[in-house]
Amino acid sequence: MTKMTITEARHALMALQRKMAAYDHAVGLIYFDGCTYAPKNTAENRATTMAILSEEIYRQNTSEETVELLEFLDAHKDELSSDEQRMVYLLLKDIRDMKKIPPDEYIAYQELLIMSDDVWHKAKEESDFELFRPYLEQIFDTHKKFARYIEPDKDPYDHWLNVYEEGLDMKTCDAFFDKLRSGIVPLLKRIKEKPQLDDSIRHGYFSPEKQEELAYLLMNRIGLDLGHVGLATTEHPFTTNFGSHLDERITTHYYEDDFACSMFSVIHEGGHALYDTGSARELAFTALDCGVSMGIHESQSRFYENIIGRSKAFCGMIFPELERILPEQMAGYTADDLYRGINKVEPSLIRTEADELTYSLHIMIRYELEKRVMHDELKVEDLPAEWNRLYKEYLGIDVPDDRSGVLQDCHWGNGSIGYFPSYALGNAYGAQFLEKMKETVDVDACVAAGDFGPVNEWNREHIWQHGCRFKPAELLDRVYGGPFDPQYYIDYLTKKYSDLYGL
Amino acid sequence: MTKMTITEARHALMALQRKMAAYDHAVGLIYFDGCTYAPKNTAENRATTMAILSEEIYRQNTSEETVELLEFLDAHKDELSSDEQRMVYLLLKDIRDMKKIPPDEYIAYQELLIMSDDVWHKAKEESDFELFRPYLEQIFDTHKKFARYIEPDKDPYDHWLNVYEEGLDMKTCDAFFDKLRSGIVPLLKRIKEKPQLDDSIRHGYFSPEKQEELAYLLMNRIGLDLGHVGLATTEHPFTTNFGSHLDERITTHYYEDDFACSMFSVIHEGGHALYDTGSARELAFTALDCGVSMGIHESQSRFYENIIGRSKAFCGMIFPELERILPEQMAGYTADDLYRGINKVEPSLIRTEADELTYSLHIMIRYELEKRVMHDELKVEDLPAEWNRLYKEYLGIDVPDDRSGVLQDCHWGNGSIGYFPSYALGNAYGAQFLEKMKETVDVDACVAAGDFGPVNEWNREHIWQHGCRFKPAELLDRVYGGPFDPQYYIDYLTKKYSDLYGL
Repeated sequence: MTKMTITEARHALMALQRKMAAYDHAVGLIYFDGCTYAPKNTAENRATTMAILSEEIYRQNTSEETVELLEFLDAHKDELSSDEQRMVYLLLKDIRDMKKIPPDEYIAYQELLIMSDDVWHKAKEESDFELFRPYLEQIFDTHKKFARYIEPDKDPYDHWLNVYEEGLDMKTCDAFFDKLRSGIVPLLKRIKEKPQLDDSIRHGYFSPEKQEELAYLLMNRIGLDLGHVGLATTEHPFTTNFGSHLDERITTHYYEDDFACSMFSVIHEGGHALYDTGSARELAFTALDCGVSMGIHESQSRFYENIIGRSKAFCGMIFPELERILPEQMAGYTADDLYRGINKVEPSLIRTEADELTYSLHIMIRYELEKRVMHDELKVEDLPAEWNRLYKEYLGIDVPDDRSGVLQDCHWGNGSIGYFPSYALGNAYGAQFLEKMKETVDVDACVAAGDFGPVNEWNREHIWQHGCRFKPAELLDRVYGGPFDPQYYIDYLTKKYSDLYGL
Repeated sequence: MTKMTITEARHALMALQRKMAAYDHAVGLIYFDGCTYAPKNTAENRATTMAILSEEIYRQNTSEETVELLEFLDAHKDELSSDEQRMVYLLLKDIRDMKKIPPDEYIAYQELLIMSDDVWHKAKEESDFELFRPYLEQIFDTHKKFARYIEPDKDPYDHWLNVYEEGLDMKTCDAFFDKLRSGIVPLLKRIKEKPQLDDSIRHGYFSPEKQEELAYLLMNRIGLDLGHVGLATTEHPFTTNFGSHLDERITTHYYEDDFACSMFSVIHEGGHALYDTGSARELAFTALDCGVSMGIHESQSRFYENIIGRSKAFCGMIFPELERILPEQMAGYTADDLYRGINKVEPSLIRTEADELTYSLHIMIRYELEKRVMHDELKVEDLPAEWNRLYKEYLGIDVPDDRSGVLQDCHWGNGSIGYFPSYALGNAYGAQFLEKMKETVDVDACVAAGDFGPVNEWNREHIWQHGCRFKPAELLDRVYGGPFDPQYYIDYLTKKYSDLYGL
């Protein structure tokens, strides 16, 4: 190794990242297959493969050769480009973290995740939390244990918050959620005193075929390149990519009694996919490909879903298409009915179907529950009851069963503890980005014209192309020229809902 | 290594095979994804991953550690079970062959295959052989080169025939095809003198949704376990599995103007899947999983497709289901119309849609062309013209374009040179198995009752459970108690078509 030149080491760095990307492609696709097309009793077969590939990945990524290469590059970082420096930093951090976890525990955990995802699907289907409980207990236990291995001096939940959002901790979250709560709760109260909006336009019968036609139309309209972005259906919509941003997949779920669920899932996941596929070509197959953090990622998905997709301009633009695809169902309605129908504020059971205003309350519940389980202040077996209690407290509603309660989200089953706050953060980042974008782009006019070019170009230039070159705070500072401030989001919500409800 | 005990080595053998299976799972799924659900411009991304994973597979399978383990076991084969002996034999053979190919050429070839498959799809779509030609030239050249590396003293085409069917060579093929030709050609001549059968029942409009409903019904009916066998659509139907026989996938293609194409694809691929999934559980994740050879595999697929699926008993059993699924299209027809409609003998352009009698002629054309290209007696650029000339000579028909000619099959594009003869061999093996099966199973009665239990049990006991424990000739001898004899197949065809056409 010591005989390696910097040029050779830089080539080796790129080769290493291509290899990591190849393994990511393999395991990502095996996971995706399990969620989409795989026959239902094949999870065990996938778990066998995943255990072996995870062991390979672990072995290779923590090998002496890999570590030596990265340490060598780190010692010569002045001779590297800024992108290379960031690659080395991120890879070394990951590897140092990984090396702190005993290999057999790491592998057993990967195997557990495959099985737990499968069990979560079954448990949700049968609304049977007990089926899922032992897996979820292991997942939380593993998160506590791994956090102790990696950052023994840090609070374990802070560790995981930082994994999904570099720089995030409970202190920031608590302050952010407090501010959000103080903005949302009074607004909600005022809305409740007003006559409710009519959302009957959403309801009726909408065949999966028609919804699929709409999904592709939306993907095209918001500017996705369908040569590189695929669509599939899953229980819970998500976005992923295989090896690089050159092969991106989004998923949706068609509810036959409400077309708006899939419509906004597609726009949301489409936002993630726009971000990923907007990465600079030279970032493909490197650690800098595909987005800064979950929070910034959600800023894009929720920007397209809500700020754009639930705007008056978007409704005006898309309504004629809805009339064409769903003529009977749209008969007698107008673009304005659509706008009001998809923005009706109503405390509800399911996070992914929540309106923009109450959405953050769903996140706060999950945040509070995760925090307490991670701190041993709440047992996994008591999660369903606490979930239901908090839904009553925050949203005023009764949870009829665990399927629409604690089992609704896929995140815990696939091992994403500490992820949820990113959604709420994303909302707030997005509102802050919008302020800046409006200085040079007439967003409403573009959307009304169905021309996403200028909006996408702005995002590409300021956010997408950079992949994860910058930390979230750094990116925000570059884009906005200031720190994160949730007030923009509260102002945005206040203005939007005051208009809608005539407050 | 020398310090390893036999017990340790036997464990290491199983671990090695599980690892190979895991990589097979990954690359198999990436290929499958490319044929099914991947966005259309993602082949390059897959090729990048495949090149890297192929290199990993090559490196690991040919590593000193692997070779030493297998040589050690080979030197102690008396202490192994017969299954373990066969595993060691097959693995060592593969690895010795692989080690004769320079690594960079092996990897470049894997990469080429991903691209060529993609280009073949485009070329077929546009009926543009020139697009595909450079890839096909490279594929044939690589086959010649690799055969020389592996068995320099053997004819290169014999080498590849033996790869797909252990023990097969041109001498056997020539004799087999001569015998088949002398049986089929006079039969065809006599049929042409008779009034043609009416196949109007096949034609009309059949929506993909209805065809999919039928596909699942057929999969269930022939006894596939849908918990372990999935269905997808592709340009060219095929069967594959991921890591083991515990996750099997079949594909079909829905032609909206002829439901019988997909119907018989599903039964054909279903036969492959029955065979694979019928492997003994303990063979999963080993080199003995999933079938002896391509010929024996085709004996099962074509047994279900033709001997069973195109029988009078099957038509009688399935017709009421067709009436239920396709009431308008089936109105006025009977089970007997179905039987005659799907057995109409008519020289045609497309192999996969050919009737049972002319099918082998399609194979003979491909065999002759492959043989000549492999022997430098024919250039790839001249393949389309020769293809068309032979279709005129053998089948008496004009090929209107390369899409329905030389570009119709996926095999060459995915690097399967020497595969085609297995289809014809499979037909003949199947007829020979049938003779034996009839000694203890009333096949027609079972099929008529829609009860595939006894038929499947016979195949499971005699063929499926053994995976590739035995060579083709050995299996045939165990099942039939005698050598391969194509006369059974000729007798079967003669009887069937004499009845159908009143010869």
